[in-house]
Amino acid sequence: MDRAELFQRIQQKRSFLCVGLDPDPDRIPASFDGDVLAFNRSIIDATREYAVAYKPNTAFYEALGLDGMRILHATIDYIGRDHLIIADAKRGDIGNTSGYYARFAFETLGADAITVAPYMGEDSVRPFLSYPGKWAIVLAVTSNEGGDDFQHTVQQDTGTALYDKVMRRVMEWGSPDQLMFVCGATRAETFSTLRSIAPDHFFLVPGIGAQGGDLQAVCRFGMNAQCGLLVNSSRGILYAQDPARAARELQQEMQSALENYLPEVSQ
Amino acid sequence: MDRAELFQRIQQKRSFLCVGLDPDPDRIPASFDGDVLAFNRSIIDATREYAVAYKPNTAFYEALGLDGMRILHATIDYIGRDHLIIADAKRGDIGNTSGYYARFAFETLGADAITVAPYMGEDSVRPFLSYPGKWAIVLAVTSNEGGDDFQHTVQQDTGTALYDKVMRRVMEWGSPDQLMFVCGATRAETFSTLRSIAPDHFFLVPGIGAQGGDLQAVCRFGMNAQCGLLVNSSRGILYAQDPARAARELQQEMQSALENYLPEVSQ
Repeated sequence: MDRAELFQRIQQKRSFLCVGLDPDPDRIPASFDGDVLAFNRSIIDATREYAVAYKPNTAFYEALGLDGMRILHATIDYIGRDHLIIADAKRGDIGNTSGYYARFAFETLGADAITVAPYMGEDSVRPFLSYPGKWAIVLAVTSNEGGDDFQHTVQQDTGTALYDKVMRRVMEWGSPDQLMFVCGATRAETFSTLRSIAPDHFFLVPGIGAQGGDLQAVCRFGMNAQCGLLVNSSRGILYAQDPARAARELQQEMQSALENYLPEVSQ
Repeated sequence: MDRAELFQRIQQKRSFLCVGLDPDPDRIPASFDGDVLAFNRSIIDATREYAVAYKPNTAFYEALGLDGMRILHATIDYIGRDHLIIADAKRGDIGNTSGYYARFAFETLGADAITVAPYMGEDSVRPFLSYPGKWAIVLAVTSNEGGDDFQHTVQQDTGTALYDKVMRRVMEWGSPDQLMFVCGATRAETFSTLRSIAPDHFFLVPGIGAQGGDLQAVCRFGMNAQCGLLVNSSRGILYAQDPARAARELQQEMQSALENYLPEVSQ
């Protein structure tokens, strides 16, 4: 799914919601009797109409043991091809090895995108950018507390933060048609900086809900002419009493934001 | 396997060799007819005597599809409990999710150690440090070309490199009995700095062989009183004409280094 198609779906659905499929065995309702795939299907059924993307986090499937990969594959198959599918895997290794992670995400799993950790630099990121029509989503600013530890380190030569260097360097390796950034919602005050660094790129925004991010602030500072945002909710939908309602409420908030900040295209 | 046991094995075997089990389907000898597990077993049989650790990189198994995890499990079972088993996975995510990766590595796979990417900070690393007797091996300086892109970024407040901050901060979260660092051999000139930052920690050293690292320089600047080094070889052994001989030659080089730099314990 390319950038134009993604934006088209956002306009059609008046939503830029990404649903994080992170099934926590300890929190899945008892009625599913531990059947993770059935739980995922119920969430997909309840949210399909309101979401433009799904984001299974590989950690939850790997922890399930040998059966986990089968469940992950079956979940992706069940989503189908109408939504952007993001393998939230935060991979990255030397070039030769990153090539195998890219093969895993794009060929084995059939995902459209994979999240990538930047610490190992250029040759660790480039293999994810060599698949036409696929996306690498590189960590820039993350929504967790530990995000402060290294990402905001001020550099001697420029006086700017490490995430600034990460984004500018990574943007040399791929275009806004193949590259997004993870930009956590808990740091909405940095969104105008992030948007000035990368005016055209989509940002994948975790941290709404359980982690306390402010959706309207993110939209105000983060939206661009093609929306440029995919806002993720995982726990806030998965473990809601009524997941469909939780997704619909987020979609409605997003529709308002589109009307406020992109009035010319949200009619 | 704790630090004292690891050092004991190094003394017994006069080796600190780690064999990287990264089976590349395109390079496995035709005689194995694509049977990755049989190939891994042959490498383990050929190197068991010379190695103290094995390090399967998860990328190669994930790329094999649904069968890959089964092969990874079977490989780990075949190694047994006499060697340190490192899941080279370079994982890291928000705390809740890193906990699932830790479960994957230590419970599902039964590895002794996992490599961890530090970009997301404290809560992404701590879950790997909560298993008694298990190890987190955090990326500090990596052996690939892209390692220069961000790891050597000079910080404004200290004038030191990002990897220095990463190591010092991470050392606040765990002891040398549960924490190692990945320190690439292609930057042997930085080993005296690395050792001054972390005098007691083990370093996992990739980059010997295919990536051009100098084993003697690493030992000269990197060894401590408990050896403190695990030197990895993957391609240099896996695809050698005679893997046992390649491993034995490395073991002999390591024995010399132990005699040179740790004469009091290498008798």
